Amino acid sequence: MLKHPLLQKYDALKRQCGTALYGEASTRLLDEVYSESLVFLHKLPKPSLVSKVEGKEYFAFQRGKKISRAINTQLYSDSLDDWRKLRTSMEKDDLGRFDANRITQVLYSMAISFCASVDLIKDGDQKTPGTFFEYFVAYFFAWRVGVEPRNSIQILNVDGEDTKLPTDFVFNLGPKKRKFHMPIKTSSRERSIMLWAHQRLLDGVYGTDRFMGTPVLLAETKTDKAKKEVVEICLPDQWRVYQLYIAKLKRIYYLDLPAAYSKLNEEFPPIRVRPFGEFFLEWADLSPG
Amino acid sequence: MLKHPLLQKYDALKRQCGTALYGEASTRLLDEVYSESLVFLHKLPKPSLVSKVEGKEYFAFQRGKKISRAINTQLYSDSLDDWRKLRTSMEKDDLGRFDANRITQVLYSMAISFCASVDLIKDGDQKTPGTFFEYFVAYFFAWRVGVEPRNSIQILNVDGEDTKLPTDFVFNLGPKKRKFHMPIKTSSRERSIMLWAHQRLLDGVYGTDRFMGTPVLLAETKTDKAKKEVVEICLPDQWRVYQLYIAKLKRIYYLDLPAAYSKLNEEFPPIRVRPFGEFFLEWADLSPG
Repeated sequence: MLKHPLLQKYDALKRQCGTALYGEASTRLLDEVYSESLVFLHKLPKPSLVSKVEGKEYFAFQRGKKISRAINTQLYSDSLDDWRKLRTSMEKDDLGRFDANRITQVLYSMAISFCASVDLIKDGDQKTPGTFFEYFVAYFFAWRVGVEPRNSIQILNVDGEDTKLPTDFVFNLGPKKRKFHMPIKTSSRERSIMLWAHQRLLDGVYGTDRFMGTPVLLAETKTDKAKKEVVEICLPDQWRVYQLYIAKLKRIYYLDLPAAYSKLNEEFPPIRVRPFGEFFLEWADLSPG
Repeated sequence: MLKHPLLQKYDALKRQCGTALYGEASTRLLDEVYSESLVFLHKLPKPSLVSKVEGKEYFAFQRGKKISRAINTQLYSDSLDDWRKLRTSMEKDDLGRFDANRITQVLYSMAISFCASVDLIKDGDQKTPGTFFEYFVAYFFAWRVGVEPRNSIQILNVDGEDTKLPTDFVFNLGPKKRKFHMPIKTSSRERSIMLWAHQRLLDGVYGTDRFMGTPVLLAETKTDKAKKEVVEICLPDQWRVYQLYIAKLKRIYYLDLPAAYSKLNEEFPPIRVRPFGEFFLEWADLSPG
């Protein structure tokens, strides 16, 4: 069976991102993936979902009997033009009129278009959207900080050869410069403790706060496909305990920021949970501690 | 559609275990689940698998085109009689002729019979085997230590009401007595860091080593169903780093102990990885630190 054109383009993007994340080749391939997603989604019905999330509305794309994951109505815009403007701004290294909200919207629309398409093209495939989202976020991050990430760290081993430990993306901006530890997930759910555990490991190996933990997540929505209802699965009490007892994360970025986590910004212990667009404006001011 | 008789019996066991783990009612229901699993499996072909694990042989049960997870040939015995002898010994609180190996074998056979049956009755259901295995292991543990576990701990909150944090099973044997923290999983794979992270949390909240971390796992086998090949997915280097930088686990028990983890017993930092049967003989000698 021939692979769907969108998945063929995704394969090419994945191959490229395995070599170099930000650059001409990956920009062109990302553009193709987004265009192809929009072509695929364009002709599909968009039933509204019953939103159990205060202040947010959601819809889904439908193909036959299948519906995609939930899509935030306020954040979504199927505008190839917006992305191309952002792309041009990125190439000039001047975000100009793009404020944090607009960046979040463009990135949300791109990411969710691909994920929703895969929901409808494949059956129960969580891996493809997950891997795409990793490369997607790392692409923008690599552009902003100007270095390519690594996926493993050296562990000093007094007994002989150093061990190489696989990690989430780590971006090292150079000697004595800021360093980022960036797990990237479409959602955290019952595995959120892993975000803090990996930070704890880096703190242990390289010294507390040497790497700033800045995970990026897509959303915490869960859709009941029979009832067409959307909820957000959030565990703020647990996050608070992780932040106190396991490690400190500097920021947690979301494309579709859950209401319950947004509140954590104002409480003790502070956990700074922000729309991902804000990263692009505040990244140079972030400092450890 | 009528539920399969095995799943009906499992539902009853699950309901009972939600109330009290070890007791007459759960013993009877567990016996029924095991008998029903054996009845279901008895008539099925048992193709051998190609074992890529040194020193171990595996087979699977087959039903139509489907094959179950891999089953360790040396550990498996479909003997209801062995379990009933163990049950009698447990009721007398005297394990008598049951050495660690034999306990491991009986428990392995019971657990894998149910899991393999569900593999063949349902499609891609990981949750049912996982939940069953939790109750199954906690049942034997509760018998041995004589207390029922809890699934949450109190977190002291200076700002007002204490927070309740959901946890894996914790067994508190009483004031100033040993306490166990026991995550139970059918496999750990790429989520193994969670075992150490939860221990770190308990260490933080209640003091280092107050709870002894003794996770129990079924196996780390992975079956390529097309090639009919079995491998074990093990990450011993990562475990070593977790044990050094995140928290200390007292023991890690397996029903089908992976070769690569068995070696960790002899290296530094020592990680004591043992067949679960040994717990029943050594539990009273385990002490924190």
